[in-house]
Amino acid sequence: MPTELAREDLHAAVSDPASASMNFLNEVSARFPDAVSLAAGRPYDGFHSTEDLDRYLRTYLDHLRRIGLDEEQRQRQLLQYGRTNGYLGPLIARMLSLDEGIEVPEQAVMVTTGAQEAMVVALRGLCARPGDVVLAVEPCYVGFTGAARLLGIEVVPVPEAPDGLDPEAVLAVARAVRADGRRPRALYLVPNFANPSGVSMPVPARRRLLEVAAEADLLVLEDDPYGLFGLDDEPRPALKALDTEQRVVYLGSFAKSCFPGARIGFLVADQAVIDARGRRTLLAEELSTVKSLLTVNTSPVAQALVGGFLVESGGSLRAAVREKVRFYRGNMRTLLAALERSFADEPRVRWNAPDGGFFAVVEVPLTADESLLETSGRDYGVLWTPMSFFHSGDGGRRAIRLSCSALEPAEIEEGVRRLARLVGDRAEPPDQLRRPDPAVAGVTG
Amino acid sequence: MPTELAREDLHAAVSDPASASMNFLNEVSARFPDAVSLAAGRPYDGFHSTEDLDRYLRTYLDHLRRIGLDEEQRQRQLLQYGRTNGYLGPLIARMLSLDEGIEVPEQAVMVTTGAQEAMVVALRGLCARPGDVVLAVEPCYVGFTGAARLLGIEVVPVPEAPDGLDPEAVLAVARAVRADGRRPRALYLVPNFANPSGVSMPVPARRRLLEVAAEADLLVLEDDPYGLFGLDDEPRPALKALDTEQRVVYLGSFAKSCFPGARIGFLVADQAVIDARGRRTLLAEELSTVKSLLTVNTSPVAQALVGGFLVESGGSLRAAVREKVRFYRGNMRTLLAALERSFADEPRVRWNAPDGGFFAVVEVPLTADESLLETSGRDYGVLWTPMSFFHSGDGGRRAIRLSCSALEPAEIEEGVRRLARLVGDRAEPPDQLRRPDPAVAGVTG
Repeated sequence: MPTELAREDLHAAVSDPASASMNFLNEVSARFPDAVSLAAGRPYDGFHSTEDLDRYLRTYLDHLRRIGLDEEQRQRQLLQYGRTNGYLGPLIARMLSLDEGIEVPEQAVMVTTGAQEAMVVALRGLCARPGDVVLAVEPCYVGFTGAARLLGIEVVPVPEAPDGLDPEAVLAVARAVRADGRRPRALYLVPNFANPSGVSMPVPARRRLLEVAAEADLLVLEDDPYGLFGLDDEPRPALKALDTEQRVVYLGSFAKSCFPGARIGFLVADQAVIDARGRRTLLAEELSTVKSLLTVNTSPVAQALVGGFLVESGGSLRAAVREKVRFYRGNMRTLLAALERSFADEPRVRWNAPDGGFFAVVEVPLTADESLLETSGRDYGVLWTPMSFFHSGDGGRRAIRLSCSALEPAEIEEGVRRLARLVGDRAEPPDQLRRPDPAVAGVTG
Repeated sequence: MPTELAREDLHAAVSDPASASMNFLNEVSARFPDAVSLAAGRPYDGFHSTEDLDRYLRTYLDHLRRIGLDEEQRQRQLLQYGRTNGYLGPLIARMLSLDEGIEVPEQAVMVTTGAQEAMVVALRGLCARPGDVVLAVEPCYVGFTGAARLLGIEVVPVPEAPDGLDPEAVLAVARAVRADGRRPRALYLVPNFANPSGVSMPVPARRRLLEVAAEADLLVLEDDPYGLFGLDDEPRPALKALDTEQRVVYLGSFAKSCFPGARIGFLVADQAVIDARGRRTLLAEELSTVKSLLTVNTSPVAQALVGGFLVESGGSLRAAVREKVRFYRGNMRTLLAALERSFADEPRVRWNAPDGGFFAVVEVPLTADESLLETSGRDYGVLWTPMSFFHSGDGGRRAIRLSCSALEPAEIEEGVRRLARLVGDRAEPPDQLRRPDPAVAGVTG
């Protein structure tokens, strides 16, 4: 008899609601291939070519030769099983020092199969017991909440304010969790140009958040995939750069700065870990067991591609991404200008003005759900992401996320024009308007 | 105040005993670099060169062109985020048909970041509730038991007999687990030249195991990294090739057949999954959510390397590995002959005679623990793996695993001579001899 499994007998992560939402989005995108996608948050395609790959590899192999590895060692590093925490630790530690003023020993760096695996590793290592929970900014990147669900770890949301996460709200939630007999282990957030909200934290709030983390005995999981892509050159210190007491585990990605197909991310965990006999190690070293049980080690050939890319620009990622920064700045300005033009006569449509990154949030006078998204793709030729996908409760129902990373400027303008037609046709009459959705942060316009 | 974490506050997987053992092994190997390592189970270094990588990439890109992808689609496949279950499904399904007589639709294939991730994906998807457990052959590959521990899934051991896993023992254990109120979801085993035991299952037992799996309502997780490396050309059908009722989830690895640095493995899961509304999908499709939450997708550049390697040999892995098969056959014969020569006068040393693969088990008249391993590395210049590392209880204490995959034949011979000196010096007097360890399977010699 053919085997049949009941879907309800599979783990809850299989039918994860956020993943189901993302699957729906992918299906809609596939059904309406001619729609302009203001939903896709992937980086622009035009910056790298497969022609570059061999050059990156040879550049990295030359680098290995220069630092003293002989032919056999170079072959072995790229082709064999390898060091669990990877080979890019020295290059990444130097990059963080050059670009971010983050000073960490190379032993504190673990190279991961994208930042997604870094989240899984950190969550698994830190949450040891049933009552161990993590706090997370809400709205939240679905990869994080999904990873926690995969591991059976509860995520307690902390609502994001229009000017970013409020440290006092974090403290209050952490205290409430502890009063409840549970143990808050870490807080997840994206301090620069967050996904999905586009919001950034002011520097004083960053400093206060680190104090709060110490007070509440939390680690901070700082996810920073967009930090390089500010609209201006104003310094926005990473939490990790301000972190004098090792409260921050920094999660990095090369998907936007190099290219996603390498699947190279990393985590920095320089916290001291002390065992029963007083022996001290670094958290990144302890977490290597977790990493080895997930994927053994990150493909060293893929590491070599990113390594070569970094070496080509003298070790600075910031130097390597100048062209990308110009492009994404242009796209974000195009998006914000298009919103101004298209919604000049509709005061109920409001949006925030991110200082950089790939995303902005638009508050709309109608329920922006899956059904509207389907209508939008079919009849109006434009796709976007319902903000409700990023909420655990029923927040974000009248707001959408727009991405401007994957498109040419003219496509962004066309997408916003189409969105304006959708809103014009479908907006509820003004008297039906509910009060503004508090999930929309930093509204303007 | 600098952050200090207590190691005991981290997840139990961090101090996983098997991982701790493997770390000890790595440390000992690092301390005695001149020792002959009969412990290292990695493939031989000499088969691939970084010079080959660009050719594999170009071969795969040519393949994509031939199957109709335009330049933009080819660039995007390799460099962007991509399909969660990967791109090699068609090539892998064809390879399994050509090489193994396994007929599955390409939608049943998921490409993973090595076979390790495939284990995590299968375990997480199948074990949904606290009482869901997996059975596993014992002695067992530590990557599997470790992955289960990472996910908080209990592993119930089924002892391996000298001629492989006994299907009736599986049935008895499954029934006992069910009688206990728990739900046995799957059985893990390596039917061909197992790691660590070297043992293979006879074909009649394979057929019976599939009946037992149906009777006990178990899936079978068939891990097959060594199946191509038999000592002869005798057909050893994979369980998946005999599996007419989709009881088997097949876990594959390219680490030994191609090279480990690509970190490419896969799983085949063609089981029907039925949801509450009667909608049917394949298990591999359902598991894609789990995969996406672990690593998003497997590096498509790394996939392209393995794809190019496969395309070069007309799609057959068996054709691609002929030189490797000759080498590993020679090494296994060298190992067995060396054991015959070196232990001719010591009847208490016995070993099994695997029909292929990378490993053999040797029963020794002394306790083969970490302390003896250290002595062996320091004073005798030879390393091996205590079989106790692969047991959950106190089995395997007087047995060792020898690997013959990473060495030249002359090194294997020298390693066994050194091992004979260790045993000669350290063996307990005959009167202290305990009864033979039942964990040593298929002893001979």
